[in-house]
Amino acid sequence: MTVNFALLGAGRIGKVHAKAIAGNADARLVAVADAIPAAAEAIAAANGCAIRSIDEIEAAADVDAVVICTPNDTHADLIERFARAGKAIFCEKPIDLNLQRVKDCVAVVEETGTVLMVGFNRRFDPHFGAVRAAIDEGRIGPVEMVQITSRDPGPPPLSYIETSGGILRDMTIHDFDMARFLLGEEPDTVFATASVLVDPQIGKAGDYDSVSVVLTTASGKQCSISNSRRATYGYDQRIEVLGSKGAVAAENQRPVSIEIATAEGYTRPPLHDFFMTRYTQAYAAEIAAFVASVVDGKPASPSGQDGLLALALADAALVSVKEARAIKVSEIL
Amino acid sequence: MTVNFALLGAGRIGKVHAKAIAGNADARLVAVADAIPAAAEAIAAANGCAIRSIDEIEAAADVDAVVICTPNDTHADLIERFARAGKAIFCEKPIDLNLQRVKDCVAVVEETGTVLMVGFNRRFDPHFGAVRAAIDEGRIGPVEMVQITSRDPGPPPLSYIETSGGILRDMTIHDFDMARFLLGEEPDTVFATASVLVDPQIGKAGDYDSVSVVLTTASGKQCSISNSRRATYGYDQRIEVLGSKGAVAAENQRPVSIEIATAEGYTRPPLHDFFMTRYTQAYAAEIAAFVASVVDGKPASPSGQDGLLALALADAALVSVKEARAIKVSEIL
Amino acid sequence: MTVNFALLGAGRIGKVHAKAIAGNADARLVAVADAIPAAAEAIAAANGCAIRSIDEIEAAADVDAVVICTPNDTHADLIERFARAGKAIFCEKPIDLNLQRVKDCVAVVEETGTVLMVGFNRRFDPHFGAVRAAIDEGRIGPVEMVQITSRDPGPPPLSYIETSGGILRDMTIHDFDMARFLLGEEPDTVFATASVLVDPQIGKAGDYDSVSVVLTTASGKQCSISNSRRATYGYDQRIEVLGSKGAVAAENQRPVSIEIATAEGYTRPPLHDFFMTRYTQAYAAEIAAFVASVVDGKPASPSGQDGLLALALADAALVSVKEARAIKVSEIL
Amino acid sequence: MTVNFALLGAGRIGKVHAKAIAGNADARLVAVADAIPAAAEAIAAANGCAIRSIDEIEAAADVDAVVICTPNDTHADLIERFARAGKAIFCEKPIDLNLQRVKDCVAVVEETGTVLMVGFNRRFDPHFGAVRAAIDEGRIGPVEMVQITSRDPGPPPLSYIETSGGILRDMTIHDFDMARFLLGEEPDTVFATASVLVDPQIGKAGDYDSVSVVLTTASGKQCSISNSRRATYGYDQRIEVLGSKGAVAAENQRPVSIEIATAEGYTRPPLHDFFMTRYTQAYAAEIAAFVASVVDGKPASPSGQDGLLALALADAALVSVKEARAIKVSEIL
Repeated sequence: MTVNFALLGAGRIGKVHAKAIAGNADARLVAVADAIPAAAEAIAAANGCAIRSIDEIEAAADVDAVVICTPNDTHADLIERFARAGKAIFCEKPIDLNLQRVKDCVAVVEETGTVLMVGFNRRFDPHFGAVRAAIDEGRIGPVEMVQITSRDPGPPPLSYIETSGGILRDMTIHDFDMARFLLGEEPDTVFATASVLVDPQIGKAGDYDSVSVVLTTASGKQCSISNSRRATYGYDQRIEVLGSKGAVAAENQRPVSIEIATAEGYTRPPLHDFFMTRYTQAYAAEIAAFVASVVDGKPASPSGQDGLLALALADAALVSVKEARAIKVSEIL
Repeated sequence: MTVNFALLGAGRIGKVHAKAIAGNADARLVAVADAIPAAAEAIAAANGCAIRSIDEIEAAADVDAVVICTPNDTHADLIERFARAGKAIFCEKPIDLNLQRVKDCVAVVEETGTVLMVGFNRRFDPHFGAVRAAIDEGRIGPVEMVQITSRDPGPPPLSYIETSGGILRDMTIHDFDMARFLLGEEPDTVFATASVLVDPQIGKAGDYDSVSVVLTTASGKQCSISNSRRATYGYDQRIEVLGSKGAVAAENQRPVSIEIATAEGYTRPPLHDFFMTRYTQAYAAEIAAFVASVVDGKPASPSGQDGLLALALADAALVSVKEARAIKVSEIL
Repeated sequence: MTVNFALLGAGRIGKVHAKAIAGNADARLVAVADAIPAAAEAIAAANGCAIRSIDEIEAAADVDAVVICTPNDTHADLIERFARAGKAIFCEKPIDLNLQRVKDCVAVVEETGTVLMVGFNRRFDPHFGAVRAAIDEGRIGPVEMVQITSRDPGPPPLSYIETSGGILRDMTIHDFDMARFLLGEEPDTVFATASVLVDPQIGKAGDYDSVSVVLTTASGKQCSISNSRRATYGYDQRIEVLGSKGAVAAENQRPVSIEIATAEGYTRPPLHDFFMTRYTQAYAAEIAAFVASVVDGKPASPSGQDGLLALALADAALVSVKEARAIKVSEIL
Repeated sequence: MTVNFALLGAGRIGKVHAKAIAGNADARLVAVADAIPAAAEAIAAANGCAIRSIDEIEAAADVDAVVICTPNDTHADLIERFARAGKAIFCEKPIDLNLQRVKDCVAVVEETGTVLMVGFNRRFDPHFGAVRAAIDEGRIGPVEMVQITSRDPGPPPLSYIETSGGILRDMTIHDFDMARFLLGEEPDTVFATASVLVDPQIGKAGDYDSVSVVLTTASGKQCSISNSRRATYGYDQRIEVLGSKGAVAAENQRPVSIEIATAEGYTRPPLHDFFMTRYTQAYAAEIAAFVASVVDGKPASPSGQDGLLALALADAALVSVKEARAIKVSEIL
């Protein structure tokens, strides 16, 4: 079976998903919609698909699934609409920045029984996936401590920061999802501290650029997260997990792995400088997993519930930053 | 401009090139030919191209370039035929296993002025390319010594060995090309030793499975090559270059880079186990370089002459194995 | 000038310091004291020094400096006594487990003007020292975030845990000192969480075996510490520091660095399994630095004040664990 | 039992051995002899031993063993003399630069039955020793191919080159011994090529500075050696061994293992810049092994025969360089 896709939103991440669909033997892009005609046309030309309005896509018999890459504040409405239209839905995170709105939206999805996958792409990275597999295979025994280091090469435009919901809900949220993916037990407290070390403008916009988080679970498992909006050496994305029998770590990735040795020392090139090149394989695997869910009619993972719980951790972290204490997730949810 | 391709030979490596063409925005596969209908049909179905005979492709106005992936002993004839037909030619190595036949073929190509690229794919590997770039940028000073380690995960079928021309002309030839690519000066002597350590059947077939080579240039630069048909840990492909100011090395590649630490030690997964996954990027870059040559009407690199010189080194090495002495390349050419 | 030493306490760490003194061209061990005659005799035999009582050492004209390796609860008294006796003092951490007692002791030392060095040996590790040097040289710009991973191969005997002051004052205290050494600014808040994941007996003894800490400074610098009493793969001791211009990290050390590649992957041996082999060089450099201070009559570093401030962070962390909030260091000091 | 040593020759390497003896609980340095009084005095002062003439040492009842670190051309005579005097002998390589002289000397040693160890220190390096242990434990199956990379940070003084016997007998000889140590079978042919790439003065002195060697054994095992007198990045000492079941490699060693990441990439410091710091542990283990042989009255390894066979390979290599052919070791021995 081939899954026929429509793409809602033809921006940067939309193009990534269009390419992943094109590279998937079981998927086909039949339509694209975007408020900006030129953006839709570019995708249409590159992929040989139709340009349609969202209404037309909603009504289309030849569309099995939609990929939602529109602005954040439209996600929840579109999810509900296409869930009711009986389409399978892949939605970029976040479902919404408001937790109650996410809860309501997830409830609608559950009611309709449609397949919903939320775009936590890192779960599909082969290296992080291999970390999880090593845990599942019992290679390191029960998980005790997780360390996640996640740093961007540089800060996004200030305009982005202003609508992103802040670093905790925009950037750290990926790490919250990864923590849940690896811990094997829900975090029940969150401590976070945040400061502005990279760019004072970020502080003026009411956000932070440097974050440390500690999550704990009921049984005492611990997870540390370290975020910065600036890592001159590239896109720093590492995880390591300590278990009773050992540890497993995923190393950073670089586009070119050579080493030059001179009197000054041994030098390897910087890391990937962009999430799209770093996570190329992850985006392809993510769409493949979504397609498999649609074909099998089985629930997708990460689900709407996963989107909800990651946002709850982000919201708890924000309270923690302000109150300088560990926040129970139950205070938030 | 889009370059329209026909693929001659729809086997394993033909599929690799078809995929590279499909992924290249400036290339289009219009036809495929293969003596085995099912093979041609599989490529045609996957790429939406026509199935044609070689005669039809030769005559086709809508074909700019051919990719020759047919059996080795047909390469030289096909190159000459398509050179005369005015098509640009990408040919898998070898042009021929007979040096004189290669010389004659290259002469025909030069006469017609067509673009000919020979498939030494490793030049296009981003890591090996970065080694060459580091040399060209003067990062390590003038090259003095090159070390190439090139080992297959396991031996090919005996049937392949019998028609391959032997390990030196089939496997080491890639390293001879890499040596020329990196030394910046033609090797003028070749010493080689070879033995059968992996499988006695290989010896019975008149071939070797373990090879050590030393090349030297007129100015005294040296290159060592180490080959084996068996590396249990994967496809071992490393180069390192020593210069007066330092050294540069390209490390091995693995599909998954995690590390598991236990009481037994720190373990990383094996390397790629197949040349196709190891050199995926190289195959794409190779076709891109060929397309660029066709579009610009400029000579391709590696050229027919590069194919010729690598074969001459292989032939010299074979004499060296038998005579246990360093062979001057001028004795062969 | 040769510094003449007396060693107080001939146990495990006493032997380490005796050996460091023996290997130092500017130091000489003249006497050893221990309540257990056999222990003192072993040191005396190995080093050709006298066995004396503490009283004799206090009165000895031929002793310039003492190394205090006696039980923790005797440190502060001995420091005060030998400070008043005009001897230079090297004391193993902690000065005392009671913060007020440490303050009083440090005040006495300051009054006498003697040289006091506290045994935070890790500052003298060549790798950690090189991290600090890289910071001081401006290689990574101003420090923003520090990550310290510090895990023991296995838990100490329960009897040790009961008198050690707990993991925060016994083990994490080294990391608190390292944090201060690297941050370049005093931490002013401490958050810590701790749990029992390794051995329930540790919990019954009122202690923890797994700890995560976040320190912050007034300017917003952050430091994460991750501790466990069990790392099956060896003595895990890593630091990394992020600055505005880059990052610097010190890797783990192993006694043997080979790598074995098989069909199962690439395996390196485990790390050092004991702090004495891991920090052999550090112990030698530590005594050398102390000797240099004594010879020059200059203040030693780390000083009594450093011992005091590290303990204050540990005490703050303990309050944080119990109250689940970030503690201001000023609440403690 | 304590082995009482006399040191013959108080130069650079003599000091290394004096220090190794001082650090060995079962060894004691009782005397030193050197033609240069100041050199002998320095060793005597640092180690509290007597200064004696060689005649006095030969006659001394309190000397069990001698360490010969005198100029190369005195080694064979001193070995014979002290063998006849019934002393155990540790001699720096070479026994002599003349193969016949070495044979005669080894014959004398065998006649007397004394313990003779030749100073191929690298066998005692913990990393290289672990490579050998991995082979012996069957971790990689039967050995097939060995690669030895051995490069000095910079060339020695010309005066040294003139008396050293040339790079093959001075530097490569260590690699010949290592090849024998690892192959598990005697090399029976040697091919070598050598050139002058580092310093033309070396060529004028009749020597080479860049060498590639291929050794083969009767069963077809192969060993490649790559030497240069210049590696700007430090003392490059690597071995790797391929077997039927896998491979094992010993990595380079550096005094400080940190990594600095910036926009320019990831940089680690250079390697050790001197053989004494690189092989500190090896020198200690070497003396310990010698002491053990003396105490047990068992043959030492590497023996005089090992010194002889390594020199034979060097001599064969020199003929190979001149005649550009593989030399049978039987042509030399």
